[in-house]
Amino acid sequence: VRVADVVDLNSDLGESFGSWRLGDDIGLLDLVSSANVACGFHAGDPATIDRTVAAAAERGVTVGAQVSYPDLVGFGRRRMDVAPADLTADVLYQMGAVAAFCVRHGTTLGYVKPHGALYNRIVTDTEQAAAVVAAVAAWSEPIPVLTLPGSAVAQQASAAGVTVVAEGFADRAYDAAGHLVSRQQPGAVLDDASQVASRAVRMVADERVTAITGEEVGVAIRSLCVHGDTPGAVTMARETRQALTDAGVRIAAFV
Amino acid sequence: VRVADVVDLNSDLGESFGSWRLGDDIGLLDLVSSANVACGFHAGDPATIDRTVAAAAERGVTVGAQVSYPDLVGFGRRRMDVAPADLTADVLYQMGAVAAFCVRHGTTLGYVKPHGALYNRIVTDTEQAAAVVAAVAAWSEPIPVLTLPGSAVAQQASAAGVTVVAEGFADRAYDAAGHLVSRQQPGAVLDDASQVASRAVRMVADERVTAITGEEVGVAIRSLCVHGDTPGAVTMARETRQALTDAGVRIAAFV
Amino acid sequence: VRVADVVDLNSDLGESFGSWRLGDDIGLLDLVSSANVACGFHAGDPATIDRTVAAAAERGVTVGAQVSYPDLVGFGRRRMDVAPADLTADVLYQMGAVAAFCVRHGTTLGYVKPHGALYNRIVTDTEQAAAVVAAVAAWSEPIPVLTLPGSAVAQQASAAGVTVVAEGFADRAYDAAGHLVSRQQPGAVLDDASQVASRAVRMVADERVTAITGEEVGVAIRSLCVHGDTPGAVTMARETRQALTDAGVRIAAFV
Amino acid sequence: VRVADVVDLNSDLGESFGSWRLGDDIGLLDLVSSANVACGFHAGDPATIDRTVAAAAERGVTVGAQVSYPDLVGFGRRRMDVAPADLTADVLYQMGAVAAFCVRHGTTLGYVKPHGALYNRIVTDTEQAAAVVAAVAAWSEPIPVLTLPGSAVAQQASAAGVTVVAEGFADRAYDAAGHLVSRQQPGAVLDDASQVASRAVRMVADERVTAITGEEVGVAIRSLCVHGDTPGAVTMARETRQALTDAGVRIAAFV
Repeated sequence: VRVADVVDLNSDLGESFGSWRLGDDIGLLDLVSSANVACGFHAGDPATIDRTVAAAAERGVTVGAQVSYPDLVGFGRRRMDVAPADLTADVLYQMGAVAAFCVRHGTTLGYVKPHGALYNRIVTDTEQAAAVVAAVAAWSEPIPVLTLPGSAVAQQASAAGVTVVAEGFADRAYDAAGHLVSRQQPGAVLDDASQVASRAVRMVADERVTAITGEEVGVAIRSLCVHGDTPGAVTMARETRQALTDAGVRIAAFV
Repeated sequence: VRVADVVDLNSDLGESFGSWRLGDDIGLLDLVSSANVACGFHAGDPATIDRTVAAAAERGVTVGAQVSYPDLVGFGRRRMDVAPADLTADVLYQMGAVAAFCVRHGTTLGYVKPHGALYNRIVTDTEQAAAVVAAVAAWSEPIPVLTLPGSAVAQQASAAGVTVVAEGFADRAYDAAGHLVSRQQPGAVLDDASQVASRAVRMVADERVTAITGEEVGVAIRSLCVHGDTPGAVTMARETRQALTDAGVRIAAFV
Repeated sequence: VRVADVVDLNSDLGESFGSWRLGDDIGLLDLVSSANVACGFHAGDPATIDRTVAAAAERGVTVGAQVSYPDLVGFGRRRMDVAPADLTADVLYQMGAVAAFCVRHGTTLGYVKPHGALYNRIVTDTEQAAAVVAAVAAWSEPIPVLTLPGSAVAQQASAAGVTVVAEGFADRAYDAAGHLVSRQQPGAVLDDASQVASRAVRMVADERVTAITGEEVGVAIRSLCVHGDTPGAVTMARETRQALTDAGVRIAAFV
Repeated sequence: VRVADVVDLNSDLGESFGSWRLGDDIGLLDLVSSANVACGFHAGDPATIDRTVAAAAERGVTVGAQVSYPDLVGFGRRRMDVAPADLTADVLYQMGAVAAFCVRHGTTLGYVKPHGALYNRIVTDTEQAAAVVAAVAAWSEPIPVLTLPGSAVAQQASAAGVTVVAEGFADRAYDAAGHLVSRQQPGAVLDDASQVASRAVRMVADERVTAITGEEVGVAIRSLCVHGDTPGAVTMARETRQALTDAGVRIAAFV
């Protein structure tokens, strides 16, 4: 099996909080193979986690802990200078909390995916990346981290013997070096579902993506992130999944 | 071995929060056999949990999850009408969070002890008691709950096949029926260390306590709670431990 | 002017939190005369309060502080045993916070309306009612409290010299004694917009409402609450307003 | 009256949270002329604010709002990328909340002092400084901001017509340019009470301080910050006050 014959679809889920609802979790759980479940630090509360993990487990979707800085009002999107030891503890706390619901619903915690400002920061910040990896490495079982290939966190994880699963974004522009273009720039986010779907097929089947400047760039990913919090999220995820399946790519979790 | 030859000493620990410090955790960890570690809902934050569990594990002290209503500003001492399904999720979340630190420090979560207003409520509230027990029963391993003998939560736990460990309080007055006298009443809390210590010996070795009204009342406990948040806490715990040891009682965790 | 010639329409607004959106605040602000702005304890965060107060002030809608127990995850709907002195401080804190935004946007805080579990509790709990009134009475100016006529809080307010503004609910069933029927009972909440609208007219113009058991009951209200968090909220508010206007009732804030 | 004949002593107070106590508020309130009262974002809860403002008002101590990033667990000491509009709202919210307690206790909010990571950031970050100033400028009355002379926030405040009160630190080392030496460097914090006291006198009466590198540096301050959260805080504040009084300097709030 070439890596290109199979891909995981992951999505951010369980991002409601108390009475506030966000996204169509059930709609997406019917399409993805991995659920990045919010752990209560940027979104999610215990009852929401319970419901989300139950629905994921029912559908055989792998559950991951979508760990974040502690910032509900900012949805984890604000950079915070959390000291490394505190960050390790924050991440471990979130992993443990979600894992308890996995046991309740007959599954196990499959991976860790950092969220928002933390995700972005540890692409380059080696110290915070190492702090996150320290938490992942302290888990009872070997457990992978899902992140950008080539990032600081990917390097720290590899150095610590933690498996890295490379993810890509079919709805985000890449530059000629294979990095994501900042959301601040025009054209950074694609919203045409059929364009995103065919881009997804090329990324997986051909291991290539067209950069925003026109070059062909190699990508090697095991998981595609499909966003869950936009109005057309389910439609885009469905088209992406269909296009991949039509191209002979199998959708399967990496754990 | 008669049950009376051995007793556990448990104490509420890890109740600092961020920059705020509470109690002498290290002083008490050198004396108790079980640590009721705050889980972040009434006290404790991830870094505090990490530090407390590490110190407990180093000393061979069993770690329990001291679960609470979500109420930091009220220290979990305010009754809250949390719906049963939400309460189950709250308890499971806290258990999982603390358990992750147990793994990190080479131990396992040993038991669950409800805190404050939740502790008091499920002495009599069957519905909330059942909600707490549902969380305990969903744990990956059989895990006991530490609580008052004869309480609603003890009954619900037994009915659900969850082990109940009976605890007593040498520094609290009992009535003739063997129930705790409310803290509101005069004489409800004892603060003389040597009186508390000799009372502890009688409770454990003779399985008897003198009620506030003078009667001798039978008690059957496997654990004694020593308080940690008062100025003389460590002294009282030390005298209690010494008196028990002198009387030939072994101090040992129940798990 | 008979009191029956004019009525205030109030609605719960600003109940978003961070990234989570709730209700159509702008749609309702175009219809009501008073905005019960969430203060950050059950919903609302500073930026949401700022936005909501700005939009209310622009439209000449009076701003009230919708004060709550501190319970974001439970949306202030869970009864909490907050000590009276703490409750007074909680209410005053919320009033002050919202009032600062009123100044920023050229208006002043017009009234206080308790929310959710606090609203319900102080209908009968005299001690908590007095604690809320103590906060209102400590305000820099005389400021009214908006609540159910005949409630404990209305009595405590009157005793303390705080003005009470009586509110009614056209979409809720009343019993023969003129009290609201519990939401738990069938038929307690009405969802037909035209029925609610004609009921509103009768409550205001005739000062009467038909009880769930068929009797005619007298009501004397100065404000009608229109709910904002249901899908048809804006439609129901618009029909209610139209029906009142058609019946010659003027819609105007009470302050 | 030369400015050098009078100085304000300010201290961070009301930094307890719920059951957790921090510092000797009463001891310090007997010595300072201005109280920087924590507003609930890094420390302080409504009941603590109430108690602190009451005690300040009783003693004729001016109350200021010690505004912070929203970060209880980090005590407001962690840099956070809060968007400018959100930061303005956060500051205004905190000012309003504390001001309500001032009214209750017969005083008025006298000034604003940023705390911790926010204090440090707006020494140089013009955008966040402007966001803080926007809140201060939106207050119902002209109200000064207490901060480092020459800082970005001082410049933004002056530009917006907001009065700046310059503060100095007798227990912190200055460099030859008159800036504070980073706490990270050895010798940055002085802990000898009599040395701090005589330094305070020179800073106020002579408008000079000896830099860590030996040079004499001019300082022009209207307020001296005395720290409240260290074990010897009250002693150091008492010696500082005594030395100033002995040197003929009057201690008086700036508002």
